[in-house]
Amino acid sequence: MKSSIVIFDQFTDLDLFLMWDLLNRVRLLEWEVRILGERPHHISATGISAPTHGLIEEANHSDVVLFVSGQGTRTKMKDSDWLSRFRLDPEKQLIGSICSGALLLAALGFLKGKTATTYPTTKQTLESLGVTVEEKAFIEHGNIATAGGCLASQYLVGWVIEKKAGAEWKQLVLKSIQPVGAGLYFSDAAELGKLYAPVLSAHGKI
Amino acid sequence: MKSSIVIFDQFTDLDLFLMWDLLNRVRLLEWEVRILGERPHHISATGISAPTHGLIEEANHSDVVLFVSGQGTRTKMKDSDWLSRFRLDPEKQLIGSICSGALLLAALGFLKGKTATTYPTTKQTLESLGVTVEEKAFIEHGNIATAGGCLASQYLVGWVIEKKAGAEWKQLVLKSIQPVGAGLYFSDAAELGKLYAPVLSAHGKI
Repeated sequence: MKSSIVIFDQFTDLDLFLMWDLLNRVRLLEWEVRILGERPHHISATGISAPTHGLIEEANHSDVVLFVSGQGTRTKMKDSDWLSRFRLDPEKQLIGSICSGALLLAALGFLKGKTATTYPTTKQTLESLGVTVEEKAFIEHGNIATAGGCLASQYLVGWVIEKKAGAEWKQLVLKSIQPVGAGLYFSDAAELGKLYAPVLSAHGKI
Repeated sequence: MKSSIVIFDQFTDLDLFLMWDLLNRVRLLEWEVRILGERPHHISATGISAPTHGLIEEANHSDVVLFVSGQGTRTKMKDSDWLSRFRLDPEKQLIGSICSGALLLAALGFLKGKTATTYPTTKQTLESLGVTVEEKAFIEHGNIATAGGCLASQYLVGWVIEKKAGAEWKQLVLKSIQPVGAGLYFSDAAELGKLYAPVLSAHGKI
């Protein structure tokens, strides 16, 4: 089970690393998470050099493909060379976006006739691509999902983990980042240990 | 106004990048955010190579010093050479931690006689250092603050931004990452533009 997160220059740091960190908390042997781009590194909106694990073509052979957000989406949505390198199949793959990453899903044709959500500052641009934009944190249509607002990455990642690892992993991973006393409790310590334990087999129960 | 985030090997990705991304959303001319470590790069708990901007001694001349969490805190809390390089002054600096970063505040002597919060899996270790641990997301004692649970980084960063840039910046920055329809709305688009505008003067109003 391979999840790929697609980045580019001028991506939003938090969107990448929230999804990356949460996806990596699932401790299953065949569970792989990759950061993909055009180059060995991409520069975030704040100037951080983030390493990639492979080229964007690897997304075509991933079980899950997630697009991050950031100012760079405005460039990439018009970059036909870049877009043409993706051969994604929503029949076989889960495909999702956070915030302005929805512009890329739309540019790739995956939001035709669907509702979607995005960041407030990209609502008009997404609408100009013919998408009906709804003021929701998370919108799922079969294997296509969009999330809006950085922290809504939780819903997007939760959707992936529930479908690919099960509801127990989803619940534990999402609980593990909640504020103490408001979703996460000291009595959860033993259960949290499962997130740091050696990996289990693909069918391992929590 | 310089904020420094201290990292080390085996740090938690989300804790660094949530604080980093949010602090960088304040658009004031003299507002500087730095990632500090012992080396040009540190390797996160998930194997990401994160660049540092300077050495940990720079923390001694920062207005704000924030310690991240991760398995590496268990090593660093016992590393007397590393600890001795910090000469922090809670009279002049804001000093804070997220999750197991509280072990480092305790090792540096800043939690003596104070209550604090941490991640559930480090509660016992923090107590063994003589700290009274409370099941809260955020605990502030003057210029010392601890937060527990990754997403409680919001409270820690909000505390810093309110004290150093004002309540309006705090409110806008924290709003900017909430889920759409649950704290962030399409009608916020114009206001959010301030987070991407050129920097203002130190006394610039939002």
